[in-house]
Amino acid sequence: MPHIPLDPEFPGIRGLMAFRPETALPLNALVEVLLQGPSTLTPGERELIATFVSSRNCTQFCHNIHGAIAAAHLGGNEDVVRQVKVDFMQAEISPKLKALLKIAGKVQQDGKLVTPDDIEAARDEGATDLEIHDTVLIAAAFCMYNRYVDGLDTNQPADPAFYRERGKRVAREGYVSVSKEYVSSHSSAATR
Amino acid sequence: MPHIPLDPEFPGIRGLMAFRPETALPLNALVEVLLQGPSTLTPGERELIATFVSSRNCTQFCHNIHGAIAAAHLGGNEDVVRQVKVDFMQAEISPKLKALLKIAGKVQQDGKLVTPDDIEAARDEGATDLEIHDTVLIAAAFCMYNRYVDGLDTNQPADPAFYRERGKRVAREGYVSVSKEYVSSHSSAATR
Repeated sequence: MPHIPLDPEFPGIRGLMAFRPETALPLNALVEVLLQGPSTLTPGERELIATFVSSRNCTQFCHNIHGAIAAAHLGGNEDVVRQVKVDFMQAEISPKLKALLKIAGKVQQDGKLVTPDDIEAARDEGATDLEIHDTVLIAAAFCMYNRYVDGLDTNQPADPAFYRERGKRVAREGYVSVSKEYVSSHSSAATR
Repeated sequence: MPHIPLDPEFPGIRGLMAFRPETALPLNALVEVLLQGPSTLTPGERELIATFVSSRNCTQFCHNIHGAIAAAHLGGNEDVVRQVKVDFMQAEISPKLKALLKIAGKVQQDGKLVTPDDIEAARDEGATDLEIHDTVLIAAAFCMYNRYVDGLDTNQPADPAFYRERGKRVAREGYVSVSKEYVSSHSSAATR
């Protein structure tokens, strides 16, 4: 049961966004820029980074929904999502993405663990400064989203079908657009 | 030396925001709502939560600048900032803030560590649902900002005078306003 009263219609971060629309707006804007904005990393690659970090943080809602969005971007390939969660070094992904996931895995623990050698290895595989920047910020941002979802003990469904359907929709329509269902820009939690 | 080329004029997160204006905008909007928007927690209390989490993450730039902003909001009281970093249970702060810092400290490690008893203890000291929500999100957000600043090895000055001056200004003018110095809304990193 969530630690604060949340609308049971909206699981995971969606209940929190409905509860506090003022913070939902920048939280949605950030994930939209990072995961679906213009980038030389594909949306599928960026969703895999988010999925990987959420899986390392053991946040069921986030690794399931972002895994589903990643699969939707990757032509329905759920196998590669599973591989990235279990052992990304063996996954069928590019050497560049492996080098970026190695950086993301360190950021998930502590940003200070990232070494110049990690960065050099990513550059050797063709990663640009902007791709390295975005990888670090995606990993850092999911350390926030995961703690937010877990720290308030939100309802996190277990059924894969729930995530599969939702994942296709978010991949198609985007975060900010889909969030309009539960984030009202006219209500304010701070004045309750 | 930073892992990617950042303008040396802007230390810590400011160099990153200058590098990537698209993500700087929601990052600044989020911190402004959480730390300076309407709330029944004072700006000083909220900055102490941010300072405490940044100190636990050992992110020098963040715990120094938010400590300085907290002190500015608290009439220049740097002692209480130091107490909160060292041992918040002994600090001269309210029992409610101690209960909220206990929750923040758990979120800093893993959101799943927060128990119903932690929440109940905060409620017993008068914390509202919204204050509990914001405490969790502030703690989670600083786990992001800290990892972002550390993960790209930004320049983090050691001189307390640097933070003291800046802290007063951010306390007075706000995050979004002050960030206009280094975040241009017209440039885009994604098209470089």
